[in-house]
Amino acid sequence: MKLLVVGSMALDTIETPFGKEDNILGGSASYFSLAASMFAEVGIVAVVGKDFPEGHLDLFRQKNIDLQGVTREEGETFKWEGKYGYDLGDPDTLGTYLNVFENFNPVIPESYSNVDYVFLANIDPELQLSVLNQVKDPKLVACDTMNFWIDNKVEELKKVLKHVDILLINDSETRALAGEPRITTAARAVLEMGPKILIVKRGEYGALMFSGDDIFWAPSFPLEEVIDPTGAGDTFAGGFMGYIAGNDITDPAGFKTAVVNGSVVASFTVENFSVRRLSGLTKEEIGKRFAEFLKLSKVD
Amino acid sequence: MKLLVVGSMALDTIETPFGKEDNILGGSASYFSLAASMFAEVGIVAVVGKDFPEGHLDLFRQKNIDLQGVTREEGETFKWEGKYGYDLGDPDTLGTYLNVFENFNPVIPESYSNVDYVFLANIDPELQLSVLNQVKDPKLVACDTMNFWIDNKVEELKKVLKHVDILLINDSETRALAGEPRITTAARAVLEMGPKILIVKRGEYGALMFSGDDIFWAPSFPLEEVIDPTGAGDTFAGGFMGYIAGNDITDPAGFKTAVVNGSVVASFTVENFSVRRLSGLTKEEIGKRFAEFLKLSKVD
Repeated sequence: MKLLVVGSMALDTIETPFGKEDNILGGSASYFSLAASMFAEVGIVAVVGKDFPEGHLDLFRQKNIDLQGVTREEGETFKWEGKYGYDLGDPDTLGTYLNVFENFNPVIPESYSNVDYVFLANIDPELQLSVLNQVKDPKLVACDTMNFWIDNKVEELKKVLKHVDILLINDSETRALAGEPRITTAARAVLEMGPKILIVKRGEYGALMFSGDDIFWAPSFPLEEVIDPTGAGDTFAGGFMGYIAGNDITDPAGFKTAVVNGSVVASFTVENFSVRRLSGLTKEEIGKRFAEFLKLSKVD
Repeated sequence: MKLLVVGSMALDTIETPFGKEDNILGGSASYFSLAASMFAEVGIVAVVGKDFPEGHLDLFRQKNIDLQGVTREEGETFKWEGKYGYDLGDPDTLGTYLNVFENFNPVIPESYSNVDYVFLANIDPELQLSVLNQVKDPKLVACDTMNFWIDNKVEELKKVLKHVDILLINDSETRALAGEPRITTAARAVLEMGPKILIVKRGEYGALMFSGDDIFWAPSFPLEEVIDPTGAGDTFAGGFMGYIAGNDITDPAGFKTAVVNGSVVASFTVENFSVRRLSGLTKEEIGKRFAEFLKLSKVD
């Protein structure tokens, strides 16, 4: 196994202008691992409750995703309820029920401890540190976080960042972490905190990759069929890290290609609720849209 | 004169996280013409009040911008007061004082009637129609509008769109005009209304150009020094149209280059209040940033 993700598996109830779905498969580790599995061998460390359908676990198994690190605890699975407005921008959270996720204590299986690539999805920075203590000498560690941890556990988060190669967050998180409204200035301040690369995820507006003095801008694919934006950021991270792990990327051009692959895979996720589009995705579809992507921002 | 702009000249009072400035030069025709003058001969049709400083008019004259169509009326100049928040996103309007702009009735000087390129900035669609009736047979007409006209004069606006080659508006205006939240679907609906090209301006997130089935995405330059976003959209339009008029562009690749030039010039405008950065801008600076722009979204 090349790539480990530690994050959430969830049951989401989501309303968008195009419909409402109850208790559908969600969570950062779900989207990440399915996206990454298009490019590399992936394993998940996460926790689910008694109500988590076995059928969902079968889906991961079909994609050769290793589930040794997924534990099933007494109680209900982590649940999130959200509603998107007309423009499919930031959703309103109608309910967050941590359930078994509240006491999540990630234990890395012994067979994973030599893993080369690690992605710490958006969880408590103290748990992210605990994971880092359990893996021996990974080639590359990436992580995500959110404004809640920036506001409430910034010291722990800064400890994590000292050990992280790549940070993937959004605009407002970048601004909050740096305490600086200008995104370029904020990005430089975040790079001072430890990561060698910062990727600012901007949803339908694409992604910016900051690396030293270099800036790379990847568009988001302009879609006809956006149904549910949930999971786009985690899918982006999965496509990005999967491509890196699957090809042992170390050069700047390779990282740019990885960003485009992240954007490509994320563009499929939003075409349907949950992981429905992602779970049937083929390498051919990814390759075709990758080529369209390059054309999109090309000045002849 | 190759390019005519009909729009506003204003005195703005603007507060951003980086300062507050009272009664500084603003208005769509001001930003547009100064940007376009980097590439082509420009003339303005607009109205100012008795209080509009002669020094501002001298600035336009220095740039060889033709002011035959600028009239000075009894009363005060159009004034706008706005305040930008922490993230420099959409400003709060603290005051709009139309003054002499309320009775603006654009009269196109006889010497302008054979103009090749026309930009109808964001004014009442009825006035836009009146301008179109006064110019003989322009090669290319572009226009801007805003949600206020989409909400209140959509029939008049649709008449304008039937005679317009290029429409330049933002995301929310595109969605409102089409009555459709998905930007790509909305863009196709807008193209059905008449324009051959739709450019969706997305501020710091760049611009999308829709033309037939083709989509082109231009980034916005990630800046260290964003001081005041006012006028960025009008500057973008000015750089875009100026490049087209100055080079008699008719091919798709040329329009893409024009979009990038629009983004480049706009990236300078936001580096200072009012037209301060724009008024000292050199062709060398534009050329240098143009090259950096192409690098920004290039996958090696």
